[in-house]
Amino acid sequence: MTILRSVAVDTPSVLDRAQQLAETLAQTAVERDRQGGHAALERQLIRDSGLLSLSIPKRFGGPGTSWTEILHTVAILAEADSALAHIYAFHHMQHASVQFWGTEEQQQRLLGESLRLNQFWGNTLNPLDHRAIVTEQADGSYLLSGDKAFCSGALGSDRLIISGWHEPTQSLLVANVPTSREGILIRDDWDGIGQRQTDSGTAHFHNLRIEADEVLTPPGYVHAPFATLRTCMVQLVMAILFASLGRAALNTSKQFLQQQAKPWFASGVPSAVDDPYIQQRFAKLWLQLKPAQLLIDEAIAQFEAAFAKGSALSAEERGAVAIAAAEAKVLAHQAGLEASSQMFDLMGARAAQAQFGFDRFWRNARTHTLHDPVDYKVRDIGRWLLSGVVPTPTAYS
Amino acid sequence: MTILRSVAVDTPSVLDRAQQLAETLAQTAVERDRQGGHAALERQLIRDSGLLSLSIPKRFGGPGTSWTEILHTVAILAEADSALAHIYAFHHMQHASVQFWGTEEQQQRLLGESLRLNQFWGNTLNPLDHRAIVTEQADGSYLLSGDKAFCSGALGSDRLIISGWHEPTQSLLVANVPTSREGILIRDDWDGIGQRQTDSGTAHFHNLRIEADEVLTPPGYVHAPFATLRTCMVQLVMAILFASLGRAALNTSKQFLQQQAKPWFASGVPSAVDDPYIQQRFAKLWLQLKPAQLLIDEAIAQFEAAFAKGSALSAEERGAVAIAAAEAKVLAHQAGLEASSQMFDLMGARAAQAQFGFDRFWRNARTHTLHDPVDYKVRDIGRWLLSGVVPTPTAYS
Amino acid sequence: MTILRSVAVDTPSVLDRAQQLAETLAQTAVERDRQGGHAALERQLIRDSGLLSLSIPKRFGGPGTSWTEILHTVAILAEADSALAHIYAFHHMQHASVQFWGTEEQQQRLLGESLRLNQFWGNTLNPLDHRAIVTEQADGSYLLSGDKAFCSGALGSDRLIISGWHEPTQSLLVANVPTSREGILIRDDWDGIGQRQTDSGTAHFHNLRIEADEVLTPPGYVHAPFATLRTCMVQLVMAILFASLGRAALNTSKQFLQQQAKPWFASGVPSAVDDPYIQQRFAKLWLQLKPAQLLIDEAIAQFEAAFAKGSALSAEERGAVAIAAAEAKVLAHQAGLEASSQMFDLMGARAAQAQFGFDRFWRNARTHTLHDPVDYKVRDIGRWLLSGVVPTPTAYS
Amino acid sequence: MTILRSVAVDTPSVLDRAQQLAETLAQTAVERDRQGGHAALERQLIRDSGLLSLSIPKRFGGPGTSWTEILHTVAILAEADSALAHIYAFHHMQHASVQFWGTEEQQQRLLGESLRLNQFWGNTLNPLDHRAIVTEQADGSYLLSGDKAFCSGALGSDRLIISGWHEPTQSLLVANVPTSREGILIRDDWDGIGQRQTDSGTAHFHNLRIEADEVLTPPGYVHAPFATLRTCMVQLVMAILFASLGRAALNTSKQFLQQQAKPWFASGVPSAVDDPYIQQRFAKLWLQLKPAQLLIDEAIAQFEAAFAKGSALSAEERGAVAIAAAEAKVLAHQAGLEASSQMFDLMGARAAQAQFGFDRFWRNARTHTLHDPVDYKVRDIGRWLLSGVVPTPTAYS
Repeated sequence: MTILRSVAVDTPSVLDRAQQLAETLAQTAVERDRQGGHAALERQLIRDSGLLSLSIPKRFGGPGTSWTEILHTVAILAEADSALAHIYAFHHMQHASVQFWGTEEQQQRLLGESLRLNQFWGNTLNPLDHRAIVTEQADGSYLLSGDKAFCSGALGSDRLIISGWHEPTQSLLVANVPTSREGILIRDDWDGIGQRQTDSGTAHFHNLRIEADEVLTPPGYVHAPFATLRTCMVQLVMAILFASLGRAALNTSKQFLQQQAKPWFASGVPSAVDDPYIQQRFAKLWLQLKPAQLLIDEAIAQFEAAFAKGSALSAEERGAVAIAAAEAKVLAHQAGLEASSQMFDLMGARAAQAQFGFDRFWRNARTHTLHDPVDYKVRDIGRWLLSGVVPTPTAYS
Repeated sequence: MTILRSVAVDTPSVLDRAQQLAETLAQTAVERDRQGGHAALERQLIRDSGLLSLSIPKRFGGPGTSWTEILHTVAILAEADSALAHIYAFHHMQHASVQFWGTEEQQQRLLGESLRLNQFWGNTLNPLDHRAIVTEQADGSYLLSGDKAFCSGALGSDRLIISGWHEPTQSLLVANVPTSREGILIRDDWDGIGQRQTDSGTAHFHNLRIEADEVLTPPGYVHAPFATLRTCMVQLVMAILFASLGRAALNTSKQFLQQQAKPWFASGVPSAVDDPYIQQRFAKLWLQLKPAQLLIDEAIAQFEAAFAKGSALSAEERGAVAIAAAEAKVLAHQAGLEASSQMFDLMGARAAQAQFGFDRFWRNARTHTLHDPVDYKVRDIGRWLLSGVVPTPTAYS
Repeated sequence: MTILRSVAVDTPSVLDRAQQLAETLAQTAVERDRQGGHAALERQLIRDSGLLSLSIPKRFGGPGTSWTEILHTVAILAEADSALAHIYAFHHMQHASVQFWGTEEQQQRLLGESLRLNQFWGNTLNPLDHRAIVTEQADGSYLLSGDKAFCSGALGSDRLIISGWHEPTQSLLVANVPTSREGILIRDDWDGIGQRQTDSGTAHFHNLRIEADEVLTPPGYVHAPFATLRTCMVQLVMAILFASLGRAALNTSKQFLQQQAKPWFASGVPSAVDDPYIQQRFAKLWLQLKPAQLLIDEAIAQFEAAFAKGSALSAEERGAVAIAAAEAKVLAHQAGLEASSQMFDLMGARAAQAQFGFDRFWRNARTHTLHDPVDYKVRDIGRWLLSGVVPTPTAYS
Repeated sequence: MTILRSVAVDTPSVLDRAQQLAETLAQTAVERDRQGGHAALERQLIRDSGLLSLSIPKRFGGPGTSWTEILHTVAILAEADSALAHIYAFHHMQHASVQFWGTEEQQQRLLGESLRLNQFWGNTLNPLDHRAIVTEQADGSYLLSGDKAFCSGALGSDRLIISGWHEPTQSLLVANVPTSREGILIRDDWDGIGQRQTDSGTAHFHNLRIEADEVLTPPGYVHAPFATLRTCMVQLVMAILFASLGRAALNTSKQFLQQQAKPWFASGVPSAVDDPYIQQRFAKLWLQLKPAQLLIDEAIAQFEAAFAKGSALSAEERGAVAIAAAEAKVLAHQAGLEASSQMFDLMGARAAQAQFGFDRFWRNARTHTLHDPVDYKVRDIGRWLLSGVVPTPTAYS
């Protein structure tokens, strides 16, 4: 058993496949971080791994893998390559979205197709970006025109979860459409300081036709608590990515300290791992990371139970999952950032050489932790503790 | 379900009794903290609760309650009165000591007697204080003379776990003797800034005769890994007390905020619980406490499993328990101190009135967290993470 | 030159007297902290020191000592006894209040009398407590009836700065009256967890007659920027007290480490001061305290210059002083609390004995830092940095 | 007056030139950070600024600018481009080295030449890298062969301060030689994650002949306290760079918040600068940075005074400067890293776009703060506070 492990689960075969994929991705992670851009080859490796279908329920012919196990594969991949792990996780999130928001017929049709064609799904949902406008047609279909930012995983995908702002109701329509449809332009324009191969660029829509049966939630639709669990899952995926980056940082620096680092000349100790301040710093980082992981485990278990309740889920129960995910995310945010920055204090001046690419952990953590402000997660937790008010279900809470 | 709960277990009747006792102790806790000194009446309440026998195994006629559940009763009492909880926990620790160090015959005799007479055991073990010297007699008995400091719970006890420094072997003898024996003087001289009713004063021995069959470990005795689990249990008790003080501080300030506090005039919010900075501060303290509690749960489970292994326990396995306890204790140390100090920032100037006695949480936490330096716990964890070296079994690690 | 020194100034004679007084107060500080209550004897020692007249300007016959030097005497006394230092500082604050708010005639009359009679002034101003109501009389005088809380230094004083709530204008009247006047009852009812000899109890007024020429600011009066400098001075006094408590804590623990502490058995170092973690912890506390002291020095200099400007002071200039004082106070708050709590981690278990009274530093800091919420000081600083908005002049900002 | 300003000095003309140069460098800083490599053009701009001669004393014909002012120009440049500021600062450091270590004749000759030819000096001193070996020749000259790492500013320089390991005495020889001399190969091989245009690559020496009169300190030479002030200056330069990066991060994010950022949808405030958590976070970062700047000012003043003492400087006085520099550097380390990382929490997700290049502040700070371990600076401070022991003069303390 390694000290710095990820979430523990029972079924090794899926995890073994994830581990194998992770090792392959790890070999080129530094180089691909430098290049950025679209990782066509690696996306194919993910397709070939067979892991994309995990989130398809048994009743639609899929393996019906538990969310716990799926999220564990995310953790494994994220320790090797948090950018591709993000795209991978959001593919499953789109599968989940159909389960949260779609009719039984839509689920069967869309997930069935995804299984048959081994599809890779992408994201153009961004609910805060209201530039893409949807208008109703006489026949019940919609037309969508305008831009969307932060469309992670859209490039190279087969299908998209898509949202459009509906002016009359001041609300969003959400639909699922094939990426290849006329009227969709996915730009290869993501250039972030981290998470560089997430293709989180912009999409442009021009009179994109959305059929009535492709609409998951029409404008003005009020979600039941179950449907808003999607946000909890997004938040959990984030927490897992942050913690995985922290784990990667600690494992990397541990290895460096054991194999390459020299003790500081003024320390008087025979090797770097014997330095009292290095031992202390490493332990303190671990004591930030381990709690984050325990809270992630706990939150995943709550999410899994809530998902199983389906439409019976109450607002209060959904709120408890949201709080558990928020707690895990806040700690993982802190742990990921601190470990990926302080790993350099552990390793010393030589570690700053670009050839090692050790700064990618911080750049990835820093980029991804900006998804939504950590201070408002903390606020939500405090409000709940003091007033018993659960977070208002939004796309961020 | 309360938000700020203690460790969760299954059998309510024992916990109910502990809860009832806790509520009784809570009524006078502020007043008794002010007085300090010996809590004769409250010790009798503890005796009357029937909880003292929990740690007597079934094979000796006791209830054989799990350590998990016993430690849970400690957590419940500590939230109400961490001084008496300490004495109570150390009583069980002395029961455990006989199980760690005694022969089967000694266990049967001593624990059987404790059960029959509903005894309350005390502590005069302090292994760092070598002033009490033990000398061998020709008949295999020993004589003990000298002083011992920090003898928590010795005053008013029925039996003592006692140690004496043996000069020839430069090691300790440990024994179990009746407190009433001639040659034992327990002084009522504890005057601490916190944990004021723990009777942690000095004991004086003058030619105290220790019979051969009262000796648990003779001088020079080398402990098997199982026997050194005692230290892990001590450390876990500490962690539980610290976390309970943190929980008490947060629950107290939550109640004060909800019922008494006024919003700061410059905040612009209708009530104190709506203040964004109070929500934040409360949440941050909770995010220190909750991880401490999760790590305590985890460490208790590891301890329970290790205890069950008995003499089959390996040094490595014992080391893993020691690390788990250390991790829990470091986080609980921090959480207990921060919550008990920052609770005042939450509540405001009125909370500084001595009538409330709110400072006792910090004074108790501050006193008890000095048992052994937190920095060396962190060091042990770092050393283990980086070099795989488990802590050397001592009375503090 | 000592390492942990207070603010440096040039004229030794006044500081020498303060130092001498501080040494006398220090001898009984632990015992008097335990007793609490009114320090009649020590107040007399302060009177006898001749330091009470320092804040009387030369034009009224006083020494006209600079605020820098007066505040330095506060720092010296506060390191020995922060409760009496508070009363002492607030005496000067009341002298200053007459200079901020009174007419030239009032200043001459009141400060002249204070000088002649070597008066000790007290505080019943508390602007947030509106229970004491003032009503106008036909002859221009006022009657005051009701209660006031937190009246530090009122007991045993000769004159009071007093405030009453005026319902018609929803504002405060402030006046200066003799403490002995009929209608004033000062209760000896302060019982705080710290600052125990500040007599910060309640005052009761019953038809207290306030003559027209005793009114410093009538109801509805709008202060010029200069008059609102008083709050800056209050805040600076607080900062000085917090930093002095931090200094006292570090000096105390340094002495304990050098003279009494034993190295931790697992440290492998010959003496406690050689412990790498103790060196680190001490340095980190110092690196919180030293900046606080530098910012206090800077803020005092700004205050002194602003005071010298008198009525020419602009709102913007007053705002800059308020920000400087806020910065100093936030750092001193943190430094005082951390040093007074962590000093125990430095000194170890023996330091928890009540005979040393080491917990008084934390209790004093904790009590006094509740004067107004630190979070709103931080907020004011952030708002100013980002939007250029100076704090609204109130009794707390 | 700007809020986030650097050290204040009196003579504007030099600072104006620095400011002008800084503005020019700022225009291409993001792009050049991306490219890395040698900044030939910008080095020429620095030459053309006339600032390279500032550190040449008046008695050798130079302007004899104070170190305070020179270090202020470093601060100004570092806020715009910390890589070129480093090379610039180290040029002056090499000028200073000749003053610390050279004879009056050497100073006159070398600094005179530097002035005449407007030279740019570089660094190949690295005292921890003993691969370049120096051997004595019969004629008093030396030959140097081997490699040196971390040779900042060597590429493109006119002269080098150079060190070689002397096996017989197990000590270093230090000399000053022209960069163009046969036997010197400066490699363009620096590829760091930050400080990318510092040319901190390797130098290779092959039978480099060092004339006797080029030797500043021969092998085995024991430095007087004055000579070891050089390290204090190095440490101060680091502190200034770190603080300047912090200032750059705060100024950048302030501008972004004022001009581009949108308030978080759940905040309920009209603009980002009104967000209570953004105000708080910004203020807290400022409260780390401002103390660092005050301590830097204080340390510079102490350094300037110590430099003026020359050979009269005592070991104790040198130690005080070393401590002052260490205190400043520790705070600047923390302030620089925290501001450059948390600036993203202030600005939100859009700030992660690579086009802004905002991550360069953290990468620069992170790279440069690895020069020597911060934990040993803290240790030195603690040791001095508790035992009065000044740091042993080395190339790092």
